[in-house]
Amino acid sequence: MRIALDAMGGDDAPGPIVAGAVKAVAADPELHVLLVGDRAQIEPCFPPGTFPNDRLEIFHCTQVITMEETPVLALRKKPDNSISRCWQLLAERKVEAIVSAGNTGAMVAGGLRLRRFLKNVRRPGIAAVMPSLRGPCVLLDVGANVNPKPTHLFQYGIMGSIFARHILQRDRPTIGLMNIGSEEQKGHDLAKETHALFNSSHLREQFIGNVEGRDINRGACDVVVTDGFVGNVVLKVSEGVFDFAMKMAAKDVLGALDAERPRAQQALQALVERYDYSSQGGAPLLGIDGICIICHGSSGDQAIKNALGMAARYTKAKLNELIVQELELEASTQTEDEDAV
Amino acid sequence: MRIALDAMGGDDAPGPIVAGAVKAVAADPELHVLLVGDRAQIEPCFPPGTFPNDRLEIFHCTQVITMEETPVLALRKKPDNSISRCWQLLAERKVEAIVSAGNTGAMVAGGLRLRRFLKNVRRPGIAAVMPSLRGPCVLLDVGANVNPKPTHLFQYGIMGSIFARHILQRDRPTIGLMNIGSEEQKGHDLAKETHALFNSSHLREQFIGNVEGRDINRGACDVVVTDGFVGNVVLKVSEGVFDFAMKMAAKDVLGALDAERPRAQQALQALVERYDYSSQGGAPLLGIDGICIICHGSSGDQAIKNALGMAARYTKAKLNELIVQELELEASTQTEDEDAV
Repeated sequence: MRIALDAMGGDDAPGPIVAGAVKAVAADPELHVLLVGDRAQIEPCFPPGTFPNDRLEIFHCTQVITMEETPVLALRKKPDNSISRCWQLLAERKVEAIVSAGNTGAMVAGGLRLRRFLKNVRRPGIAAVMPSLRGPCVLLDVGANVNPKPTHLFQYGIMGSIFARHILQRDRPTIGLMNIGSEEQKGHDLAKETHALFNSSHLREQFIGNVEGRDINRGACDVVVTDGFVGNVVLKVSEGVFDFAMKMAAKDVLGALDAERPRAQQALQALVERYDYSSQGGAPLLGIDGICIICHGSSGDQAIKNALGMAARYTKAKLNELIVQELELEASTQTEDEDAV
Repeated sequence: MRIALDAMGGDDAPGPIVAGAVKAVAADPELHVLLVGDRAQIEPCFPPGTFPNDRLEIFHCTQVITMEETPVLALRKKPDNSISRCWQLLAERKVEAIVSAGNTGAMVAGGLRLRRFLKNVRRPGIAAVMPSLRGPCVLLDVGANVNPKPTHLFQYGIMGSIFARHILQRDRPTIGLMNIGSEEQKGHDLAKETHALFNSSHLREQFIGNVEGRDINRGACDVVVTDGFVGNVVLKVSEGVFDFAMKMAAKDVLGALDAERPRAQQALQALVERYDYSSQGGAPLLGIDGICIICHGSSGDQAIKNALGMAARYTKAKLNELIVQELELEASTQTEDEDAV
């Protein structure tokens, strides 16, 4: 299993990125990581005795796209940037997966530019795993596609459902459409047309209709489908509110205690870490021919290690083969329906 | 101060609605409430000895729009419904404010239908007060306008800023545009065009540019502007995540304690109540000539009492006069700019 890791992407890169790669190869004997970036900056980050290593390789390149740069412009102006080199390695099948904590927009734009989508996929989407009272659920798209068509959202339902079944282990995943009310005629045209599309598809049994913002954490369904603008806002609002709630709990609840305060503090800290959005490992860009994991800019070594593990797991689960099969089925159903009309 | 209260709107109406009105008039000697709805259902809800009362009146009507009905259709089919009657009382200047915990869509549609907007207002927007680490901020629109134009969002910035100054007591409110990244060129066309509009206006000094989902609770700015779809999702996601976080804290933190558990439980319960979205009192529909407060469907008597108090406060603060002045100023600036070109 070979993975290209963008060593230059992330708020504190390359330090924690390199450290994460070292941890990941130590934990998984089948893993081979290509650190993509400036050799002169990467090499000094290896802890003593960890490099050279026959499963850690540097793929040298000279340029970096920063977090603030406009993705499309930056990709054009900097041909030797680490993100483009990762995509190139994937396109040439020199690696099976790529991982980056760098500029999300550039990562997505790099993939769109290459157009190495799975067969029948119209537009890839980023899937984020969200916590709920009934276990994790998957929300997509969280930022790849801010102007989607109803068919894009419908395909996110298909891909999300496969993800929920094979990664989150849900037998028969339910799918909800993010909207501002439960009634069918609610929301903007995109929501209404997507709703109709699900209801007339082979997914209609799994489709529970519209869900609202508060339904995600209640665990109302296993897959929540939305456009990349709303999904990105939802992801970041969730992060912000959880952080706010934990800070308030620390102030008010811990502040009310005496002897048992350390115990409460420990429990609260464990809770914060469990739902820390930046340590989750990353979010897959589904629909790409190959595995692509996008990590939080603030990812530390543990998050990078988790993301590499995630990439390896998705490859083993043959997620992409399953997506292709399901989309083939959908395409053939559509043709039959059209014939019947 | 006369307020029309939709006695039939709300999950458990009219019980808690009537109880809220009774509490509100007891607390404010200047308040006069017209309970709008079915007299036969309203009268039995008065606690013994509270009715008749010269500051509590029933305005009888026969129909009710339920939570599940399609707003525009329901308004047409049920001319004698309590929401339309409230709007009518406002239009005839028989009341200064209206309050409802009923079907939000019908409440907004009723107002749009009447078109009793403040001078120069293009589209009203619902403002919600959100908690942050640096005190409350205002988010708008949270559901009145799901397909806004950039000028609508710009006006939400103006109205939100006046709200923040005169209701939240912020000296010089800052305004942020909800987006999926901080860079100017981020997001969809609506976001980009609105960004440009703020930057070329007299609000440019107050405009801090794009804000992301996690910035709301951090208190990055006093006013967050967005479309009604995103705003509604943000409001409900916030409610859902806060609820989730409190449930997790109750389980994990309280579960770790012994003797001091009751004390921690009390502190946590106080925290939950402080940020209970359904007890906040309601959200004003800004831009209407008159005060219109929209409450959570699950509002109890305390929430209704708070909403009535809120309506009275906004009327006294002359919020609408200030909005009209500011929009006049903006309109004259635009004309000057155009003349200068």
